[in-house]
Amino acid sequence: MNWINYIGIFAGVLTTVSFIPQVIKVWRFKSAKDLSAWWLLIFFIGVSSWLVYGFLIIDFPIVIANAATIFLLIFIIIAKIIYRNN
Amino acid sequence: MNWINYIGIFAGVLTTVSFIPQVIKVWRFKSAKDLSAWWLLIFFIGVSSWLVYGFLIIDFPIVIANAATIFLLIFIIIAKIIYRNN
Repeated sequence: MNWINYIGIFAGVLTTVSFIPQVIKVWRFKSAKDLSAWWLLIFFIGVSSWLVYGFLIIDFPIVIANAATIFLLIFIIIAKIIYRNN
Repeated sequence: MNWINYIGIFAGVLTTVSFIPQVIKVWRFKSAKDLSAWWLLIFFIGVSSWLVYGFLIIDFPIVIANAATIFLLIFIIIAKIIYRNN
């Protein structure tokens, strides 16, 4: 693994970890009205496609980052559905 | 360009285009309170790192997707700052 891989991992960790405060926020305040349902839907399909792409080009940072992002995104999508009337 | 590149471009187009309805939503409703400032900050640094990574591994879909995402993200961050008291 060379230094370029570490930049990829750094990027993947940040874009993934960034969703943790967003997950906490929607669940804590029981509100997700400012989050666009279209953003969530299209972003979810997009991140899933990145995961497939990562597997195909056998790129470790892309696979891990997008798998973890999908995991966190599911919590935001569930909050958006549960609190849709808040 | 092979078919794997097209999956990467498809993924990049989706994760990038997904931010368009989110930009429209925050500006239209003049509210971004449900968006985590930490998410925006960390995600912005992360996407910028992906852009650098894309340049380093000379990966066309990663560069274009992340450059466009940064562009859209700036509009959301500006809305978050302007409407922070809404």
